[in-house]
Parts: sequence; structure tokens; C-alpha cells
Amino acid sequence: MKIYQNPDTLLSQKILQRPVHEAQNLESTVGMVLKKVKEEGDSALKDFTQKFDQVTITDFKVSEAEIIAAGNLVAPELKKAIQTAKSNIAVFHQSQQSDSPRVETMSGIECWQKSIGIEKVGFYIPGGTAPLFSSVLMMAVPAQIAGCKEMILCTPPQKDGSINPVILYTANLCGITRIFKVGGAQAIAAMAYGTATIPAVYKIYGPGNQYVTAAKQLVSQQGTAIDMPAGPSELMVVADHTAKADFVASDLLSQAEHGVDSQVVLIAFDLDFAKKVLAEIEMQLTKLPRREIAKKALENSPVLVLKDRDAGLSIVNQYAPEHLILAVDAVEAFAERVTNAGSVFMGNYTPESVGDYASGTNHTLPTNGYARSYSGLNLDAFVKKITFQKLSAAGLQNIGETVELMAEAEQLQAHKEAVSVRLRWISNE
Amino acid sequence: MKIYQNPDTLLSQKILQRPVHEAQNLESTVGMVLKKVKEEGDSALKDFTQKFDQVTITDFKVSEAEIIAAGNLVAPELKKAIQTAKSNIAVFHQSQQSDSPRVETMSGIECWQKSIGIEKVGFYIPGGTAPLFSSVLMMAVPAQIAGCKEMILCTPPQKDGSINPVILYTANLCGITRIFKVGGAQAIAAMAYGTATIPAVYKIYGPGNQYVTAAKQLVSQQGTAIDMPAGPSELMVVADHTAKADFVASDLLSQAEHGVDSQVVLIAFDLDFAKKVLAEIEMQLTKLPRREIAKKALENSPVLVLKDRDAGLSIVNQYAPEHLILAVDAVEAFAERVTNAGSVFMGNYTPESVGDYASGTNHTLPTNGYARSYSGLNLDAFVKKITFQKLSAAGLQNIGETVELMAEAEQLQAHKEAVSVRLRWISNE
Repeated sequence: MKIYQNPDTLLSQKILQRPVHEAQNLESTVGMVLKKVKEEGDSALKDFTQKFDQVTITDFKVSEAEIIAAGNLVAPELKKAIQTAKSNIAVFHQSQQSDSPRVETMSGIECWQKSIGIEKVGFYIPGGTAPLFSSVLMMAVPAQIAGCKEMILCTPPQKDGSINPVILYTANLCGITRIFKVGGAQAIAAMAYGTATIPAVYKIYGPGNQYVTAAKQLVSQQGTAIDMPAGPSELMVVADHTAKADFVASDLLSQAEHGVDSQVVLIAFDLDFAKKVLAEIEMQLTKLPRREIAKKALENSPVLVLKDRDAGLSIVNQYAPEHLILAVDAVEAFAERVTNAGSVFMGNYTPESVGDYASGTNHTLPTNGYARSYSGLNLDAFVKKITFQKLSAAGLQNIGETVELMAEAEQLQAHKEAVSVRLRWISNE
Repeated sequence: MKIYQNPDTLLSQKILQRPVHEAQNLESTVGMVLKKVKEEGDSALKDFTQKFDQVTITDFKVSEAEIIAAGNLVAPELKKAIQTAKSNIAVFHQSQQSDSPRVETMSGIECWQKSIGIEKVGFYIPGGTAPLFSSVLMMAVPAQIAGCKEMILCTPPQKDGSINPVILYTANLCGITRIFKVGGAQAIAAMAYGTATIPAVYKIYGPGNQYVTAAKQLVSQQGTAIDMPAGPSELMVVADHTAKADFVASDLLSQAEHGVDSQVVLIAFDLDFAKKVLAEIEMQLTKLPRREIAKKALENSPVLVLKDRDAGLSIVNQYAPEHLILAVDAVEAFAERVTNAGSVFMGNYTPESVGDYASGTNHTLPTNGYARSYSGLNLDAFVKKITFQKLSAAGLQNIGETVELMAEAEQLQAHKEAVSVRLRWISNE
């Protein structure tokens, strides 16, 4: 990590530029996969699974026996941990429930809004060495609270054709019984279009590699909603004299180990403290199994030593970090002024990893500066809100002329007539 | 409108298929416009405005003098109507404000969520014969309530280089002072990338033709958020013996006059009533200035005569109409069972056009079946929600082991260490 002291605005914009990853002909490959799955259904899924995952799957649906067997393979302590996380996530997402009240905007005009769970939702969990069962919790728990009626899950099979038991256990714990052994762009296609085995859903959620991300973007232009655009993970830590260098170092590393394209940024107010953090990073790095990944990520990761809190806040809100740790004095006052961030972790005892797993907040968050306009996954992401309105005859009389005048000014005569025909009828009553 | 009596599920799916409009090389044209504006800024805007709008603009920004002059050109009654509509829209969107409470998910673990207005938002209003000033209200009023700090508006100039005065009056009434004379894909590009004259925004809202829609979709893949995918407008009316044929006819026509690609659907339970509505449509059509448009739209528009309310509800929720009028007995009970729709208009005195203008609900709604997963424009669309969390030392001790176990199971050692280093420190205190 390179240290920059009090860079000017232009320089800090340059320093904080996220690494850009060019997609190499992704769209055409992914477009081909989508087309084939749309046309050929399950048989295309079989072909792609053979080609990309090197395994032959005859039945994509995970059987009940497999789910039960998986439950017996997960250690009791891990089960308990998953249950604790689930409970906290449920408490927090339940607190987000809110139906706005019926209001009378004018006498005789009632308007209201109602949240309804999206009926059919599909979750994607990537394969790879680490089974991301925590993401199952982050999608399925709010979906259940939102009242989504049908939940399905796709995840690529391992080389032996099985699914990691912790994923199966967690999914089953959250009420997901329709789990399919299919990954990559072909899984996204299956959930968007439906096949004989895999039902189509209205919205697709979940992390994934660049093929999965590209597939999600493509189907989102064809009518299937997606959670949010995904990019490499990132963390910004603001640390003053109240922070502890070893805590800060561990946080930066916890984000850096995600992937070589992760970015971490330290904002400090004292050069010596910044140097202490860097020394701690060197020490802690040696003990990490994923140190090579973390090292690469740290190469894209700057340290900014700034003159005061205001300068720090300005950088925070400009960068709009996915994760923001505030290890600063008067942390509530500082947090109050944060306007662009995905999730904020306050004080010395709130490492980012508690939010990744178990504190209750969601870990699916806007990356790449999207926090300026997007929320992380929350209850809103699993519902749509329908507006309702009901006018009495008196209500229509109160608003009728207003609508007639506006419709006429927009040259939409039939809009006006729909009001006029009723007003005439009311006055003839 | 063709009448179908009790079609089976497969047939009704076919009947209710929305007309598909193939984009003809839209993407390449729009991509070229975006690229040029990104690279050349204002000079590209000048060129495209000359080419597409046949007018030479030297200063894109509408001057204060133009805004003041516009105010004097709008009739006092229309001003009053716009103010009434604004007030109702404000009342309804204010009622949607809700910050979720701080919750303690476990002892010592506090989590909460905060809504913050998106700092920079851009609105697009199309040109054409009718000035869509009502859309200005539907975007600017909730944006102001949400606390969006910077609002800008782009709309194409008329042949004489001016902007319709009602649009200027309405924008100014809503606190928008930065209005730019630029339309089409080039306007979307300017708001996404920024030029010397037009500032870049974080989210773009507003209706538009297929070029505008394609441009919005493209910039949304590059980091600028957009309101929602847009398609032709549509209305479904469910009408039983309590409905009045002339009211229903006027509603169907009010939607049909929008454009030749609009779709309207009537669901009735009595063949004679359906025929009465069709006869009323013929009569009312003759008086409409936009009858040729409406006639074309009616060609894509079916009437379904069904056996009972349950059959009607099933069709409603399957079609997921943008607008839904319920002119039925026991309308509250019927509305309660609607799960897929943009906005619902209840009873005989609630024509859809009141919601288009002035009742208070938003008129920007999900079309093309998107109501299955998308909400219409509401306060949520102008904010992002940031999550916060704060753990005490005791809180971290309560959740620490859970996080350690889960991080270890996901093979993310540094995630675990960020907790462990703190737990060791706490126990040494």
C-alpha cells in the first residue's frame, strides 16, 4: 500500500480510481449460452455442465435424500453458528417492514401503497473452493420475511456431482427445497427462461464471476429483474488516534483476501499510525492461507493521510465505499455525515466480517461507487410496492377540473373525457 | 377489440401476449451517440441537436429570463391545477417516508438503516407535440421530499429553440433551475458522463422514445442508475354488473390514445355488457382528436368474458398490468387479492387519468409485466438506504465465535482473524 499525504482533490480522484477490468468478448459467449438454454432447455444445461464443470448430471434437482444426508455432514457447532446468524439476520430484516398508511390527499381521495413479496425468486451461489453458504442466508431470510412464495437456488456441482453439504443444510434451513446443480451463465439463463426442470423466476439474486454477472445484466434487459450490478469487493477504513493498528490491519486484510481485484483504502490522520498499520499488515499477512491473493489486492490499495475529519468525510462520500469502517472518536457524529456508502461499521469492536456473517445486516452491497445511488440488499429488494387509489363521487368532483385542465394542456382529450363523463353523470344524479 | 369467452389458460396467455417491437439496430446508433458525447462533450451535443432537432443551440442552459417569461405565458387556471396536483403528490409521497428503527439483534449489537436522498438526479422530458409537464411533477416532487440535493432537467428544444412554457413553469415551481435544451440519447449521455455545461448525475429518470430508453439501458451498465425499464403503456379494466359501460369505454380510450403500441384489456363477466362497452367505444372514438392512434391501439386489445371473479383475478395477476381499474362489487376484497399490478384504481369514480395527473400517486409505473418484480416510482426510487452497525466489546464477545466458525468454514481466514485479534485484546484487558 502506497502512502499519500494530503493529496489535492484531483490527485485523490486519481488515486481512488477503481481498477478497471475489461471484459474480453464476454457478451458474445454469454449471449450464446443464453440463446442455447432458451432454445434447448435441459439438454443445453447438460452440455454446458459437461463442458464447463466437467461433470455429467442426469438429474439437476438435488434429491431429498441428498439434503438429509448433507444435514448429517455439517458439524453441530457450525449448525448452531448458522442458526444464530439466521436469527440475527431475521431480526434486522423484519425491522425493515413498513407499509405506508392510507392517506387522504384531498377530501374523498384515498391513496395508499402496499408491499407484496415478489412471487418467484431465484438465488445463485457460485462454486469454487469456498462454499458461500452465508450468501444463502442473506438472500433467503429476507425473501421469506417478504413473503416470496417460490424460492429456488442454483449452484454448480462439484467434480463428483455433489453440492457442498453446508450450502444444502443452509438452504434447507431457510425453507428452500428446490435446489439445482447448475452454475455459470447457464444457471442464470435457466432461471430467466425456465426449462423442463428449472422453473422461471421473476428476479435473480446472488454473487458470481464475470460470466454470471454478464448473464444477469443481459437477462435484466429481457424482463427478468436482478438484484444489483456486481463488482469487486472494497473496504475503506477511517482511523484516528482512537483506532488500534492491529485491528485496522486485520480489517484491511479481511477484505484484501477476497480477490486480487479487491480494493482497500486506509484514511488516517497521522503518518506514524499509518506506518504502524502497514507494519502490522506485513506481520499478519505471513499467517494467512490466502496471502498471495491479499498481496495482489494491496497493490491497488492506497493509504491517504489527511489533515482532518472533514477531509476524510469528503473522501468517503466521494468514493462511496461498499464497506466503511469508522474507527474514530465521536463516531456517531462522524457516521451521521456519511452520505455515500453501502454499510458502515462503527467503533473498534465492529470488524467488517461481523456484517459478512452474523450481525444481522446484509452483506450484498453496492460496489464500484454504486452506493451513490443503490442500496444494499434489504427487504425492499424482495418486494414490489403497488399503489392503490379510491375516489368517492365527491372526491372526483374535488379533483375533476384539475385533471381536465392538465389533460387538455397535454393534448390528451380522452384522458379528460374519462373524468368529464363521470362528472356529468354525478351532476345528473 | 375482439371478444374471447372463457378462454383456457394457454389461449389466454396467447391473447394477452404484449406486442413485441423489435429494435432495429438501435444499439449501434445509440452507442455511437453516447461515445461521441463522452469524448466531445458540448460540441457533440450541438451537432446532434442540429441533426436530430433541426435547431442550432448556442447555450443549452435555459436562462432565468426564459423561466420568468414562461411563467407569464401559462394560464392562471392551469397554474392552479398544477399547484393542486403538486400538493397531492407531495402529501402521498411524504407518507412513504419511513426510517427503520435501531434494533439490537443480540445484546451489544445495534443495527439500523437510514434513507438518504440520492445527491444528484437528472430528469428527462420528451419533446413532441404534447408537453409532458405532469412527468416533471412525478419526478421532482418525490426527489425534493427525498432530499436529493441537485436536480437537473433535459428536454429537447422546439424548432424555434425554445422550451414549452408549461414545462419551464412546472420545473421552476418544483425548484429545478438547471434546465437544458437537449433531447434524445445525447441528453442521456450528457447526464451520465457530464459535459462542460451539463453536470453528470448519479441516477436518470423519465420517459422517452426507444432511443432514449436504449441510451438509459446502456448507461445503466456503466455506472449510472436509471428509474426502470420502459415500455408501451397498458391498462386492464375489470368490470362487473356494478360498472357503467360509458365510464369503462372512456377509460379504455384514455389509455389507447397514448400510442399505437398501447394495449388495453377489458375483463368482463357478461357478454352483453362487453358489447355495450364496445358500442360506447365506437361512439366516443368519433369525438377524439387522437382517434387514429386509439384505433390502432385497440387492434391489439382483447376483451375477455370470464365466468367469475376468481378467473378474473387469475388473469390480472398473470398479466401484471401497469394500470388496473377495478369497477367491481366488493372492490376492497377484490383489490386485496391483487398481487401483480403497477397502480390500482378502485370503483366507478376513479378513472385512471386522475392518477396520471393529480390524485397524488405516481404515474411512472412498470409496464410489460415488470409489475411482477418492479415498483412504480416512489420515494424509494430517490433514496438509497445505508446500513449501520455498532458493536460493544460485549456484543463482539456474543457473536465472535459464530463469525469465526462461519469464516473458517468459508475458508476466509483473515475474516476470522479480524474477530480473533479483537477477542484476544478484550480478554487481555
